[in-house]
Amino acid sequence: MKIVTFGEIMLRLQPYGYKRIMQAEAFEAVFGGGEANVSVSLAQMGADTAFITRLPENVIADKCLKELRGWGVDTSRILRGGSRMGIYFCEKGEGVRASNVIYDRAHSAISEITPDMLDVDKALEGAGWLHFTGITPALSESAALTTLKLVSAAKEKGMRVSCDLNYRAKLWSRERAREVMSELLRYVDVLISNEEDCKDVLGLSAEGSDITGGHLSAQAYADLGAKVRKMFPSIEYVAFTLRESLSASVNNWSALLCGDNLTAVSKKYRLEIVDRVGGGDSFGAGLIFALSSGKRGEEAINFAVAASALKHTVEGDFNVASLKEIEKLMGGDASGRVQR
Amino acid sequence: MKIVTFGEIMLRLQPYGYKRIMQAEAFEAVFGGGEANVSVSLAQMGADTAFITRLPENVIADKCLKELRGWGVDTSRILRGGSRMGIYFCEKGEGVRASNVIYDRAHSAISEITPDMLDVDKALEGAGWLHFTGITPALSESAALTTLKLVSAAKEKGMRVSCDLNYRAKLWSRERAREVMSELLRYVDVLISNEEDCKDVLGLSAEGSDITGGHLSAQAYADLGAKVRKMFPSIEYVAFTLRESLSASVNNWSALLCGDNLTAVSKKYRLEIVDRVGGGDSFGAGLIFALSSGKRGEEAINFAVAASALKHTVEGDFNVASLKEIEKLMGGDASGRVQR
Amino acid sequence: MKIVTFGEIMLRLQPYGYKRIMQAEAFEAVFGGGEANVSVSLAQMGADTAFITRLPENVIADKCLKELRGWGVDTSRILRGGSRMGIYFCEKGEGVRASNVIYDRAHSAISEITPDMLDVDKALEGAGWLHFTGITPALSESAALTTLKLVSAAKEKGMRVSCDLNYRAKLWSRERAREVMSELLRYVDVLISNEEDCKDVLGLSAEGSDITGGHLSAQAYADLGAKVRKMFPSIEYVAFTLRESLSASVNNWSALLCGDNLTAVSKKYRLEIVDRVGGGDSFGAGLIFALSSGKRGEEAINFAVAASALKHTVEGDFNVASLKEIEKLMGGDASGRVQR
Amino acid sequence: MKIVTFGEIMLRLQPYGYKRIMQAEAFEAVFGGGEANVSVSLAQMGADTAFITRLPENVIADKCLKELRGWGVDTSRILRGGSRMGIYFCEKGEGVRASNVIYDRAHSAISEITPDMLDVDKALEGAGWLHFTGITPALSESAALTTLKLVSAAKEKGMRVSCDLNYRAKLWSRERAREVMSELLRYVDVLISNEEDCKDVLGLSAEGSDITGGHLSAQAYADLGAKVRKMFPSIEYVAFTLRESLSASVNNWSALLCGDNLTAVSKKYRLEIVDRVGGGDSFGAGLIFALSSGKRGEEAINFAVAASALKHTVEGDFNVASLKEIEKLMGGDASGRVQR
Amino acid sequence: MKIVTFGEIMLRLQPYGYKRIMQAEAFEAVFGGGEANVSVSLAQMGADTAFITRLPENVIADKCLKELRGWGVDTSRILRGGSRMGIYFCEKGEGVRASNVIYDRAHSAISEITPDMLDVDKALEGAGWLHFTGITPALSESAALTTLKLVSAAKEKGMRVSCDLNYRAKLWSRERAREVMSELLRYVDVLISNEEDCKDVLGLSAEGSDITGGHLSAQAYADLGAKVRKMFPSIEYVAFTLRESLSASVNNWSALLCGDNLTAVSKKYRLEIVDRVGGGDSFGAGLIFALSSGKRGEEAINFAVAASALKHTVEGDFNVASLKEIEKLMGGDASGRVQR
Amino acid sequence: MKIVTFGEIMLRLQPYGYKRIMQAEAFEAVFGGGEANVSVSLAQMGADTAFITRLPENVIADKCLKELRGWGVDTSRILRGGSRMGIYFCEKGEGVRASNVIYDRAHSAISEITPDMLDVDKALEGAGWLHFTGITPALSESAALTTLKLVSAAKEKGMRVSCDLNYRAKLWSRERAREVMSELLRYVDVLISNEEDCKDVLGLSAEGSDITGGHLSAQAYADLGAKVRKMFPSIEYVAFTLRESLSASVNNWSALLCGDNLTAVSKKYRLEIVDRVGGGDSFGAGLIFALSSGKRGEEAINFAVAASALKHTVEGDFNVASLKEIEKLMGGDASGRVQR
Repeated sequence: MKIVTFGEIMLRLQPYGYKRIMQAEAFEAVFGGGEANVSVSLAQMGADTAFITRLPENVIADKCLKELRGWGVDTSRILRGGSRMGIYFCEKGEGVRASNVIYDRAHSAISEITPDMLDVDKALEGAGWLHFTGITPALSESAALTTLKLVSAAKEKGMRVSCDLNYRAKLWSRERAREVMSELLRYVDVLISNEEDCKDVLGLSAEGSDITGGHLSAQAYADLGAKVRKMFPSIEYVAFTLRESLSASVNNWSALLCGDNLTAVSKKYRLEIVDRVGGGDSFGAGLIFALSSGKRGEEAINFAVAASALKHTVEGDFNVASLKEIEKLMGGDASGRVQR
Repeated sequence: MKIVTFGEIMLRLQPYGYKRIMQAEAFEAVFGGGEANVSVSLAQMGADTAFITRLPENVIADKCLKELRGWGVDTSRILRGGSRMGIYFCEKGEGVRASNVIYDRAHSAISEITPDMLDVDKALEGAGWLHFTGITPALSESAALTTLKLVSAAKEKGMRVSCDLNYRAKLWSRERAREVMSELLRYVDVLISNEEDCKDVLGLSAEGSDITGGHLSAQAYADLGAKVRKMFPSIEYVAFTLRESLSASVNNWSALLCGDNLTAVSKKYRLEIVDRVGGGDSFGAGLIFALSSGKRGEEAINFAVAASALKHTVEGDFNVASLKEIEKLMGGDASGRVQR
Repeated sequence: MKIVTFGEIMLRLQPYGYKRIMQAEAFEAVFGGGEANVSVSLAQMGADTAFITRLPENVIADKCLKELRGWGVDTSRILRGGSRMGIYFCEKGEGVRASNVIYDRAHSAISEITPDMLDVDKALEGAGWLHFTGITPALSESAALTTLKLVSAAKEKGMRVSCDLNYRAKLWSRERAREVMSELLRYVDVLISNEEDCKDVLGLSAEGSDITGGHLSAQAYADLGAKVRKMFPSIEYVAFTLRESLSASVNNWSALLCGDNLTAVSKKYRLEIVDRVGGGDSFGAGLIFALSSGKRGEEAINFAVAASALKHTVEGDFNVASLKEIEKLMGGDASGRVQR
Repeated sequence: MKIVTFGEIMLRLQPYGYKRIMQAEAFEAVFGGGEANVSVSLAQMGADTAFITRLPENVIADKCLKELRGWGVDTSRILRGGSRMGIYFCEKGEGVRASNVIYDRAHSAISEITPDMLDVDKALEGAGWLHFTGITPALSESAALTTLKLVSAAKEKGMRVSCDLNYRAKLWSRERAREVMSELLRYVDVLISNEEDCKDVLGLSAEGSDITGGHLSAQAYADLGAKVRKMFPSIEYVAFTLRESLSASVNNWSALLCGDNLTAVSKKYRLEIVDRVGGGDSFGAGLIFALSSGKRGEEAINFAVAASALKHTVEGDFNVASLKEIEKLMGGDASGRVQR
Repeated sequence: MKIVTFGEIMLRLQPYGYKRIMQAEAFEAVFGGGEANVSVSLAQMGADTAFITRLPENVIADKCLKELRGWGVDTSRILRGGSRMGIYFCEKGEGVRASNVIYDRAHSAISEITPDMLDVDKALEGAGWLHFTGITPALSESAALTTLKLVSAAKEKGMRVSCDLNYRAKLWSRERAREVMSELLRYVDVLISNEEDCKDVLGLSAEGSDITGGHLSAQAYADLGAKVRKMFPSIEYVAFTLRESLSASVNNWSALLCGDNLTAVSKKYRLEIVDRVGGGDSFGAGLIFALSSGKRGEEAINFAVAASALKHTVEGDFNVASLKEIEKLMGGDASGRVQR
Repeated sequence: MKIVTFGEIMLRLQPYGYKRIMQAEAFEAVFGGGEANVSVSLAQMGADTAFITRLPENVIADKCLKELRGWGVDTSRILRGGSRMGIYFCEKGEGVRASNVIYDRAHSAISEITPDMLDVDKALEGAGWLHFTGITPALSESAALTTLKLVSAAKEKGMRVSCDLNYRAKLWSRERAREVMSELLRYVDVLISNEEDCKDVLGLSAEGSDITGGHLSAQAYADLGAKVRKMFPSIEYVAFTLRESLSASVNNWSALLCGDNLTAVSKKYRLEIVDRVGGGDSFGAGLIFALSSGKRGEEAINFAVAASALKHTVEGDFNVASLKEIEKLMGGDASGRVQR
């Protein structure tokens, strides 16, 4: 099944190692963005995937296309135009110091996309699944309208639609987010979120869970999932990721999948972290891959969690982990013994 | 004499060595911009210099301030505000392949400066010289108005004013440039230019010179200088730089200084180039330093040419050459013998 | 027109900068090989191109595929199998010290290819042009037979066939080369060579030319071209590259194209060199692109020479130069002025 | 309040990452030294601070000045002269392997300073606080005398004086340290130490505490603080840092502040370490900043501990942490969640 | 006592930091191989050691010799010949992602060694100890025969012989390994192994131990040791290493030494890992050094474990730890306090 | 013939590429020094060579020994003791900007050597040739006395003695140099110099030669050689190197050898320079190798010039050029064609 994702990709600039931006004499340059990350991760698992965005006509964008193409993503549906692509600077944290992300994404080509630029039939040709996140509609009003045009077209064509809530407070208010996302979620089959985004965007929270304390009540999440699904009846599955940040270097990581008569709780991993940016996106990719290839319930959620556990050990936004590696970790070998 | 420069500074990102942007896995990060380059170069010569610009409140701009401060530039007059600072990508050429510069400078804090933001008395306090270039007024209408406000104030205070024409076709049309610059040049004492910029902005050219052929007629330049000074009577000196690009790796470099009864032709250097971006700015700095410290005629132009000859051997926008090094080169030792 | 190239690609390992292998603490890793270089260069010019080789099933080969795909080469016809891919170590020269290349290519997957592995109909599907070089048949007897199978099939399908003689003394003797290449050249339309390869493989030389002295007699080359074309009547064009090695750092570079009533001599470039490995391949790509897109005579040979002149300023085997850049250089601007 | 620190700064050379010196092909070059670290850290918190040392007239020292100036430290009081600046090599440890520091600091300009070189009125002009450590007087007899001259002058001017005991066994004997420091401590208001230095220099220890076991008796430290303050009545506050080295990679870190009717015990942090060199200095800077800006008791000691906890996650000697970051950590968020 | 080791050394290529091979733009280049690692480690401890292998006549092999010689290994007994040296690619793991090793060692000069190439008298001249591992005989039949020739000659000369079982499933089957190793073990005095290799090669396991669970029964290992010694009566000591892989980043590490009336259990270290490749080899080196210099029982096994604990904190295959560092760790200081 | 050199080796720290020291964030670390360079170069040519110096007991010196040993130099005669080794910082020039060298060599272990530390019988055991330069006696009076002790002992033993004048104005005055060197030259067979050093140290110059103009009169040098040999009758050969510095990037390089009825003028090379530090030392090594292996007259001087021409293309102090490469260049192939 061809899986199309729609959204943003930025140039990501990061000091080497643990240097702070104030100390850096150079920046490693990769590319990343919530929806592109999903596409690249899907391609590594072996899925047929296309990414749709809008990029300017310059060599930085050409370089971005080269990178996506290299990872096996179909870039033929990407629009060219506009004057710049978004940039973000990332500073890696450790221990008590958190990673720090500084965006320079205003006026990007994708933020200036308008519905008329996008031929939805061409964009969705041959595809069975569309994925988007709460970031793209947050970029601008016209980006929100374009998202809506694409999402509703997908639904009309009988495609499966998934969404990662991904609330970004710097891009829009909670009120505006709720308004726009409520409209978009009417077309969604699979919703991915965490407890905070659910609260910020939908105003719903898991009673009795204590995020900062790291305690998790499966029942509370099941109830939250039910509330979400009641609010948006099109949603078949709601998946929640659960991150316990022990420090910038060590996190616990697990997830739940809620559906009809279903509350599947995943295995929990203790993660020694190389790079956690894109961790949530790799979970989304894992879940989409699992569901689109027939996995269900515990198997699906465990696949998604294993995929994203691996992501935390990989530099950059993209989850460069193969299907085989994910299945091996899922199968229980988290001992980190050398593979010879 | 305190020398104030006003204008832009950008984050400059460049692949290591001769890698093309398409090949780069990282970018070396320095800062540069026509007017900032002059200020930094002046500080290395030992001048008391302040740079005025507008920078956003973020860590990239903090890093820029750290860099300027480190090189000895007074940054206390820099305004903070706006949402981003300009960025430019630079790809180093060699031989038949030219260096390539890609700007991402739209919406920078300095381009959104307005005259009311600038307290000219504070900006010019204690200063005897103001330098600006044709880039800043090209950024936006409000930047042009702010430049005018500052330049006219400087003149009123009896300060010396210098300007580097620096025409940028990507920023404005020749017509608009002529209109704005003609207004600004009325306040200028020292004009720095090359033959192309003179033609593009002022519509004046050196009859009989043949830039592409590399032949130079001193008389033609003297005539051109006279025409410029007739057009703008406030201008006491016009300096022309002459670059013969044999290739991206080797240039010949010299200059002329025109004034009342003065046509001083500099020594000509054959330059094996490390980085020629900022070469013109370092000439400007050299000339300002020379004139502001009492050098005249041939001595002044030879100082400026030696300073900028050295710049071509230095990485980055900034001319990290000391007064002693410039004087040594000026004194005739271009043999490149090891200094032990 | 879809252009297929068939041959080898190796992992290329090279010390940073001018470090010698004995001094290197790390190797930059790129990929390259005579025929792959042609394919990548063609793709940068905008051509539709596929590369055929045989690569093992491991992550080094996966990385190679990612690289080719990133540069826009169709990798879907590449066979997987065998145990290793070739490696070569490259040490960059300067001045009186030549670049040094050390091959570790024995037992590579492509050297162990056999004719039965290759489905020529699939390999050549939709293609109008096939390119190969004298390296692949030199790898092993079975590789020579596979080359023959593919080349003869291409001819049968009415495709254009080009060949770069590329004699490698370490891989086979002159006698064996002549025997095998004579068989293969019977199917070739366009032959690319230099004077030395012509002599080594075909036993023909340009009377009166003096390679080491750098003097060139167009007539001598015209005569040589005629002799070659008489020997192999299928050959419509013979192109000769002419390199005058002034040192490892500076070369003069030009070419001739011989055909019916045609002796087109190209412009000659003085090249300040970043990396000359792949220079000949980029010439081949330029010529194939020119001829396959309707350029003829001087225009074709000048395009090919300009393309390969640019290659000498680019790191790595691949000619990362765009059509626009080639046309600009062809148009006469070799001054290396900064592109802003 | 202007805060002046007096002491040493060295060039610090360190292999990349975890390479050992025996394996390194290059050294990252930063600057650091007990007292300079305090000055730089204070400047990042927003304090007005000047650093006094003696540096030779060469480009390595110029580079050091550039760095200090860049971080916002007033370098105008630094003396120039002497023949070299100290160097130290640092090798980063991990787990069971400790970091290793090799000094090449003999004959440095600061070690050859003499009292007559220092104009104390100029050195302390406008300042309200002077900080020094036990390292500078250990460098040489003349450095000790110069320290005494400065410290006594500060006291005479009514300034606050702080001292970090910082015993260095390689520089002087315990006996000599006690003799000299006892003289200097008569002028000190705020003493910073740990249990070992207290024992080595003053011969006092915390009864019942067990450093290697990591157990801490607040009462024992309170008693120790009282003993110290009794011995040197000018001392108003004694602060003790407590480091439990679980390994080179993980430490526990806390502190106590003792004064009149005061025994304030800080929060304890578990630190995953990037670089612990300069950890103690950043504590000193934090305490000086806190006390000089009106913080008292628990607030002061918690600020100092949070500041130095952050330092352990920063490369280099300098604590590149902003006031905002320190306050955020102090406020309780040590979860290391990404800051977007 | 001169200690000779015989076996393989390969070029080891590894991406910088935690980059995956698919992401790497360069590879750090070191050398390593089971038996070479032992030799280099011994030399750092101060032992007189020679390494025997076969290397081709090219600059990569010259570089390898330079490296071995630099670390103080006698390379004068190394044979030159063959066409290539083995290469392996290594990708560093972290947390749930294991390190990954990809071999390209087929057709290496050492794998093509034949018994007649080796003059055993010259190879063993002046030596008292010979060390080999299960890797060399696995390379090829002729390598196995050469190993046998050397090992039996050593025994005949009255030398001590040690062997590390080191089973490599990619090189040979368990059946073939058992057959060949059983022949070789008849000459061995000291056997080094872990539980898995013992099972794979000898078919013996430690009843009641639970490797994956990390539980260790000293008695079970004592019994296993007895079984091994009964099977091969020449074996005086059997040493078992015990690795508990908590993750790729953290391991527990200990060992046992079994002999006549001896079951010595070492201290157990918690290891925060920089590089665990070569960890087992450094244990072998430690044990050989300990036994050959008169250490016995607990002292010997604790020395070997401390040596190899340090190795896990060192980049590359070689254990660059000095005798002094090992003794310090053995003495109990694993706190990782900075060494000033 | 075993060749012993006696003198200094320093840690050399250099910014990457063309970065200036003021811009560098790291320094590449190699080792070098006039006499060590000769030893390493000799070893690459295949000579049996030992280097004698004095190095402290620390890891920086251990690293230096590792490097020398790696290059095949016998380090067993090196003394350990003293407190530091010399350091020098090197900044690479280009074009009009000269390379810059900053020494931090005072108080080095070798400068504090005294005659009693050196057992000359052991130092010269088995050797037939001793080489020293004018740098070592310049380091200190005791170093001069130690040099004298060694040189006179060598002469007494019938060894050949060579000396490179190498005048360093920063280390001693011309007067003191003349006094000390005159004493030492009484034992010398082969003197290496250039015109400037000859003038500075011996007060002799080549009449009619014009160094800055680059013109060379063979007769003038022959006369100079005769004068030198008359002054020091023990001298059999005087060799003069002739450098024409066109710029820091391009030099012409040749030499003369004067002896009884001998004035051999070498070939002249145009050198595109990677690193010219150590160029003179590599000439000395070439000449010593040539003369000690039986080459005479033109062959000897051409070998030495070819060896040192290659050095100019190699990074670092050491001439990493093999005998084969030197002979190839000597044979006339300076075209820099790729060696495949």
